[in-house]
Amino acid sequence: MSLKFQIHHTKGSARRATLTLPHGAVETPAFMPVGTQGTVKAVPQHLLEELDVRILLGNTYHLYLRPGHEAIRRMGGLHRFMSWDRPILTDSGGFQVFSLSELRKVTEEGVSFRSHIDGSSHFFSPEHSMDVQIALGSDIAMAFDECTEHPADFARARGSLDVTLRWAKRSKEHFEKHKHERSWDGRAQSSELRTQAQRSAVSDQRSELRLDGQAPSLFGIVQGGMFPELRRECAERLVEMDFPGYAIGGLSVGEPRELTREMIATTLPLLPAGKPRYVMGVGYPDEIAEYAGMGVDMMDCVLPTRAARHGLLFTSEGRLNIKNRQYAEDQNPPDPNCNCLVCRRYSRAYLRHLMVAQESLSSVLNTLHNLAFYLETMRKVREEIAESA
Amino acid sequence: MSLKFQIHHTKGSARRATLTLPHGAVETPAFMPVGTQGTVKAVPQHLLEELDVRILLGNTYHLYLRPGHEAIRRMGGLHRFMSWDRPILTDSGGFQVFSLSELRKVTEEGVSFRSHIDGSSHFFSPEHSMDVQIALGSDIAMAFDECTEHPADFARARGSLDVTLRWAKRSKEHFEKHKHERSWDGRAQSSELRTQAQRSAVSDQRSELRLDGQAPSLFGIVQGGMFPELRRECAERLVEMDFPGYAIGGLSVGEPRELTREMIATTLPLLPAGKPRYVMGVGYPDEIAEYAGMGVDMMDCVLPTRAARHGLLFTSEGRLNIKNRQYAEDQNPPDPNCNCLVCRRYSRAYLRHLMVAQESLSSVLNTLHNLAFYLETMRKVREEIAESA
Repeated sequence: MSLKFQIHHTKGSARRATLTLPHGAVETPAFMPVGTQGTVKAVPQHLLEELDVRILLGNTYHLYLRPGHEAIRRMGGLHRFMSWDRPILTDSGGFQVFSLSELRKVTEEGVSFRSHIDGSSHFFSPEHSMDVQIALGSDIAMAFDECTEHPADFARARGSLDVTLRWAKRSKEHFEKHKHERSWDGRAQSSELRTQAQRSAVSDQRSELRLDGQAPSLFGIVQGGMFPELRRECAERLVEMDFPGYAIGGLSVGEPRELTREMIATTLPLLPAGKPRYVMGVGYPDEIAEYAGMGVDMMDCVLPTRAARHGLLFTSEGRLNIKNRQYAEDQNPPDPNCNCLVCRRYSRAYLRHLMVAQESLSSVLNTLHNLAFYLETMRKVREEIAESA
Repeated sequence: MSLKFQIHHTKGSARRATLTLPHGAVETPAFMPVGTQGTVKAVPQHLLEELDVRILLGNTYHLYLRPGHEAIRRMGGLHRFMSWDRPILTDSGGFQVFSLSELRKVTEEGVSFRSHIDGSSHFFSPEHSMDVQIALGSDIAMAFDECTEHPADFARARGSLDVTLRWAKRSKEHFEKHKHERSWDGRAQSSELRTQAQRSAVSDQRSELRLDGQAPSLFGIVQGGMFPELRRECAERLVEMDFPGYAIGGLSVGEPRELTREMIATTLPLLPAGKPRYVMGVGYPDEIAEYAGMGVDMMDCVLPTRAARHGLLFTSEGRLNIKNRQYAEDQNPPDPNCNCLVCRRYSRAYLRHLMVAQESLSSVLNTLHNLAFYLETMRKVREEIAESA
């Protein structure tokens, strides 16, 4: 058993569930912070644990380029490398290949591209993406897809969708054959690992027991641009392939929010109710609450972390640009209704000073607050679903 | 009583003591991390507390320029502004005026200079430096001195010393007259402070009791370049002025280490044995241990924090440049003999990856380790002194 999805309560289309993965349980609906390069930028792992982050997203494209998936495999997988023993979901690398790399060329076989770091040449196919994700050792891998750009006309979205479906099939076949090669069976390596050896023996044993015989799971990704009929077709074809979970991709790529909502609303009912449903790359706090209410179980977004580094704080009273002059002597906490370690301790004036003085503590504290606010938003959503029962 | 210095044990010239200040007790010999702009770069205050940092150094020059000492006074002082309720020592601003600012002009009255931030014109006199430090509300303020550059010939060092002594007298006179204007009597303001209000009432009461009627203390600074006779003269003249503590300044400014040691050895015996003795701006881990062994009670240095940001880690096995290729897959902790939160959890390979990938978590973790190593170095020194008794 590599994935268990137990629904405890429902409220309309929304569900309150527990998603059990090889590295632990995730209470859903869940927001997954993004840890692009093996770190949620600026935040030490033990503070993520204190925030009760249950699952992180890692970026396959970035980790493949640096430090490299084979290096991470040799070091026992991404969990051990970054010292994070809770679940990790990796994307397929497809989105970053399309958004970050240069000179990409898409063929039926896959995508050739140049690294945004040093211009070196690389090639990603569905099979290679699976190999990289298995080497990283994520709990949930994503099928290699072509994220349709926006705007895209029907013919373009149709073509992109067809490629995505063929690649989903290849992803699944390769993944099923190789998923047990995941990097987390650390027993053979553990004697070499002094860091690991310093941890308590109890925790090591538990982790071995839990992982023994388990494997990662692969989710399919629904594309189809902004065309409901293509979304529907894609969802139906993917469901025929029988994935343990499904994502809705290609949203939040510049389209108006009503269209995002419409695509989600169109697609969700076509996905099996008993399996987790993940909307990729969303969104603002009110969006993630709204989508969870519609029946989405998982979401990820760089927004809380990236905005934090630019001084944009999300609060119960709205957004707050902490750089603004008006906060220079404002001794209120960022959010008077928030109980996070930042709001318990620091004033807006201090956070503004850190930002103006270009102090790196600014990113640390702003990120901690925004993540706390996102996680609390989802905690409330879960509570509301449970209470309605 | 604004400063109490109780010596518990001695070992040769070294002493193990407790320095009690308005904001709490400091076990000496102590290393003081530098929090230039109201933050020890990259490290949240609660992690400094967990490291058992008992006293921080704040930079008067930086805080005067940004956010401004009057703003900090209006907000209840630096302790409250940065949410740090343990002791703070502020330097006089003199060193930074000489090392960072442009177009400075020194007269008997003081120093005019231009801000390194925006080129604006400013003037620091001994009286103004005292006013700024009192507004910041530090537990220990430093006399305004002219830090003699290195190399300086005898005439230059002599002239600089004479200015420093006259400024020390003016500093002391102004400080004594105004020290009770320190910004920490927060009772009148506390109802405005929601951040403060959220803290426990117990902690507020304790803090009010402790601060009631107390005032900061001013330390004199021994200058004199690399001339033992000038150091001696300066020390004797300052001791006549009767400061509650003394610093040795103008060291670690490019001179060879033997000379640093010689100047410290020359000066220490001339300073009253019953008062704290502080060497400013030192040093490497073996240096701070050596100077503590000679009878120095307090030291500060940017080295552990600045080096950390450049990837230089101090360990029980020597220095380690974490950027080096050789650590790319090294799964050992930075220091196998260190029990800090970084060494308990992260590998050299991971820290190298963070550095190479230019991740800000790199600064956070490297700084935490280096500070832990410095603090542990001093803890061992204190233990050795106590054990010899």
